[in-house]
Amino acid sequence: MTGHQQTLTPFLWRAENVFPEKEIVARTHEGMKRYTYDEYGDRVRKLANALENAGVEEGDRIGTICWNTDRHFETYFSVPNIGAQLHTINPLLPDGHIQHIVSDAQNKVIFVDPSLAEKLDSAYEEDSFSSVEQFVVMGSEVPDLSIEPVTDYESFIGDESTDYEFPELSEDQPAGMCYTSGTTGMPKGVEYTQQMLWSHTMATMVPQALGIDDSDVLMPVVPMFHVNAWGMPFSATAAGAKQVYPGPSPDPEDIARLIEEEEVTLTAGVPTVWLGLLEYMEDNEVDLSSLERVIIGGSAAPKALIEQFDELGVEVVHAWGMTEMSPIGTVANLKSDLEDAPKEQQFNVKAKQGLIVPGLEFKVVDDDGNEVPWNGEDFGELYVRGPWVTQSYFERPEANEEDFEGSWLKTGDIVTVDEDGYIEIVDRAGDVIKSGGEWISSQELENAIMAHDDVTEAAVIGVPHERWSERPVAMVVTPDEVDNDALTEELKEMLLEEYPKWWLPDGFKYIDEIPKTATGKFSKKDLREMYEGQEDELLQEEVSEEAAPEEADD
Amino acid sequence: MTGHQQTLTPFLWRAENVFPEKEIVARTHEGMKRYTYDEYGDRVRKLANALENAGVEEGDRIGTICWNTDRHFETYFSVPNIGAQLHTINPLLPDGHIQHIVSDAQNKVIFVDPSLAEKLDSAYEEDSFSSVEQFVVMGSEVPDLSIEPVTDYESFIGDESTDYEFPELSEDQPAGMCYTSGTTGMPKGVEYTQQMLWSHTMATMVPQALGIDDSDVLMPVVPMFHVNAWGMPFSATAAGAKQVYPGPSPDPEDIARLIEEEEVTLTAGVPTVWLGLLEYMEDNEVDLSSLERVIIGGSAAPKALIEQFDELGVEVVHAWGMTEMSPIGTVANLKSDLEDAPKEQQFNVKAKQGLIVPGLEFKVVDDDGNEVPWNGEDFGELYVRGPWVTQSYFERPEANEEDFEGSWLKTGDIVTVDEDGYIEIVDRAGDVIKSGGEWISSQELENAIMAHDDVTEAAVIGVPHERWSERPVAMVVTPDEVDNDALTEELKEMLLEEYPKWWLPDGFKYIDEIPKTATGKFSKKDLREMYEGQEDELLQEEVSEEAAPEEADD
Repeated sequence: MTGHQQTLTPFLWRAENVFPEKEIVARTHEGMKRYTYDEYGDRVRKLANALENAGVEEGDRIGTICWNTDRHFETYFSVPNIGAQLHTINPLLPDGHIQHIVSDAQNKVIFVDPSLAEKLDSAYEEDSFSSVEQFVVMGSEVPDLSIEPVTDYESFIGDESTDYEFPELSEDQPAGMCYTSGTTGMPKGVEYTQQMLWSHTMATMVPQALGIDDSDVLMPVVPMFHVNAWGMPFSATAAGAKQVYPGPSPDPEDIARLIEEEEVTLTAGVPTVWLGLLEYMEDNEVDLSSLERVIIGGSAAPKALIEQFDELGVEVVHAWGMTEMSPIGTVANLKSDLEDAPKEQQFNVKAKQGLIVPGLEFKVVDDDGNEVPWNGEDFGELYVRGPWVTQSYFERPEANEEDFEGSWLKTGDIVTVDEDGYIEIVDRAGDVIKSGGEWISSQELENAIMAHDDVTEAAVIGVPHERWSERPVAMVVTPDEVDNDALTEELKEMLLEEYPKWWLPDGFKYIDEIPKTATGKFSKKDLREMYEGQEDELLQEEVSEEAAPEEADD
Repeated sequence: MTGHQQTLTPFLWRAENVFPEKEIVARTHEGMKRYTYDEYGDRVRKLANALENAGVEEGDRIGTICWNTDRHFETYFSVPNIGAQLHTINPLLPDGHIQHIVSDAQNKVIFVDPSLAEKLDSAYEEDSFSSVEQFVVMGSEVPDLSIEPVTDYESFIGDESTDYEFPELSEDQPAGMCYTSGTTGMPKGVEYTQQMLWSHTMATMVPQALGIDDSDVLMPVVPMFHVNAWGMPFSATAAGAKQVYPGPSPDPEDIARLIEEEEVTLTAGVPTVWLGLLEYMEDNEVDLSSLERVIIGGSAAPKALIEQFDELGVEVVHAWGMTEMSPIGTVANLKSDLEDAPKEQQFNVKAKQGLIVPGLEFKVVDDDGNEVPWNGEDFGELYVRGPWVTQSYFERPEANEEDFEGSWLKTGDIVTVDEDGYIEIVDRAGDVIKSGGEWISSQELENAIMAHDDVTEAAVIGVPHERWSERPVAMVVTPDEVDNDALTEELKEMLLEEYPKWWLPDGFKYIDEIPKTATGKFSKKDLREMYEGQEDELLQEEVSEEAAPEEADD
């Protein structure tokens, strides 16, 4: 009696047939590219044939280490539609993480951007990459690399047929995969079934989520390796909207030009991107007249940013989600009774993480396991569940026990809920640091620092930063005889051997003792409180000015 | 790895908690009623307890023979949420059909509107109703009836607790049921799983379907026994929108008053309803300023109606669907490149059945089984499939073989598709007649007429009618000696014994012979062509003026 399986195939079919002339535009290392859904579909099927000829079968995991480009977008439908699994890999991670991820996911083919090929080459290590049978560089030539066998994308799909009959898949078939960084240990894999991606696509199109229509021109600035660019390549296709991909490391000028020239109506990214754009606009004329909405997520949207965009006639849509949630869970749309409220009140609401998207459920649980009232004051940990929220990690039973409770995902976020149902994150149960939209594991840095003989204790905390949301600062305890200035230089050198430059703490503060909790653990909460208001002093190093994550690795 | 099951429960939870103060308003036989989602949720749980205490278990089918009211809406969430199946029964069907339906579905409890209790009493027949353990009249008192055991709704839920923990259901659990009339034989049951209703709810909220938001005030005029009022009680709840239920047999004045007083923004119904409203407005002042959109379905929306509403500042949203499709499949929204097209062109597009809703697929197949090109001229039968399209009928293997092909539903509609993807129905493969949004089985009438000794042959065809879309006309062949005028009177009397008044043909035309197809079957296509343009002559009886389906049985 039931309906047909929920898969991504019909979204591609509909865009190709109902919106054949709508454009997909990409800024690439080869210059601007531009084609239609009609041509896109043909290239997706060529790629499907190429994958099949390369021995890819249902259930295989295909890795991508790529920026937001047309070719990366082609893998988005081609890989899931043949029953394989699209595993987007974050190129900004340390080499050790990438090795772990590729080995854990047993990727059979890896697609890599030309600008990231060197990064892959440096992360390459025979054992971890033993499952990889083919590397494909996203261009029409192959740079000089040690990885092999390697080919270029255009040669890979070159002679293939544009005909391919996609199989009728089960909605339970894994279709996507993305690793999430936590406070402890190596990144954990989250798998997305066809059904999860279908559900997330339908849900994000509804007005109380992102309200995506074919009149929109979507530009996901959020990298496609961050939970499928928040699902926008799928939802834009389902809606038959024009899509704009900003390519490798777009700077504010690139973003401004793309909005102007392609008449972008809806774009999305972390706060850092938009702060950069507004800064650029101080000295440069930018025409934002086409732009209707900016989706901000990844880190909390600062209220000042919401106000600044409002003055420019652009609505900020603040969204929150997690890798485990495909990712969107809440969106701070105004309820209809707030439409006539004073601007100031509207900004306060829009600065919260928002209302739960239709189709999901949540509860907020205090330390005793009781649900807290929705009064904007009582807080607890946010639990969520729904058709696009995972209920387990990939082969990590110990993490599953910790992070899930029955059908509920324990988000690790400490929140309040106001009387209107708006959720606000007030703290994180964990202590990861989010800088420019990217995760930094405080515990890894601590472990590395404490590995130095001259260090007694060390804790790394996130310190609020205007541009990058947060930057790491190391609190270090040393014996009296140690020369702290010299140690700082040694520690930096040591960290740089293992981690990208933007992971380096912006400050090393030498203190007498790290405050401890009752059970003897470092209390970072106390540390953060002790140094509240002293951000300028703590951030003395300003590594961040020269080592933005977006610029670190290309 | 997969997500949580797709069920209706989160929609109710969200409306209750995020939109507790939003209103549900109903016109009932007790006057206007008005409460909030907050109170609604409590009553849904009281009803859940009452059903459980009445012995209802997971998988039981609960019938409703009800108009669009608050109490009927309470069954919409209560019954599926406890794992039972909401079976809405069309009270306008002949008694024999209702008997078949109740017996086929094995309904355990039946809810009935006070205004329809007499209809139920007349249809009641011990054998067919043997599964029914409880009748509940939708009010606070029980009228004098022969059915039993019977109680009233308020007594039924009266003392129950407002606490009820809904079970975690499988998305494959049957949640709804509705019977569809075909050209041949008895109505066929279509079951809706939780997943089908979830999918349809999410899909109809998206902008390219109905675009439902919490700022909307929804009034489904389409009866709740017609495929869950096109799913609007679910989608309105999921969006947290105010809902208005127009109650038993609303006339144009009722509809006008509800739009004005409740500031309805979005309403839905068959063309007949809106023709009636516009006619009423010729002599009465009606303020439609709140009304943004009218969804028209059930029969094709006449272009003149679309134009008239446009002049009033109201957009007609033409939708098409089927009982088998939960029901919405296409919506004639304008594509973005048509937004600046001349009005005349826009009206032509809006008069088509529309674009396929995201998430579904279709194909158009000619007699040889080949797909026809999308050129607006070639035609074939429309096949559809998707997560909210059934793949089988309830216990009707012979119909399943005829009406499905693999995962595809064969709609029986003959359509063209234009270059833009707009589907237009040009004919029906079957010969059912649709009058005022209600189905009339031509074959049943034919069989009844041919049962008369003086009738040699008879065919009943649908003749276009300005107000009711179509009315039946009987073409009858008699021996020379028969007095046709006297026979007409006898036939009418005879038909009235078995069928509602509005099923009576509006004309009896005596002809020499019914044209036949090559295989000797009556060719109604030829008949319709022979009498094209002679509608006025054929519709000599005008039964329709006094026997509208909406007024026939209350």
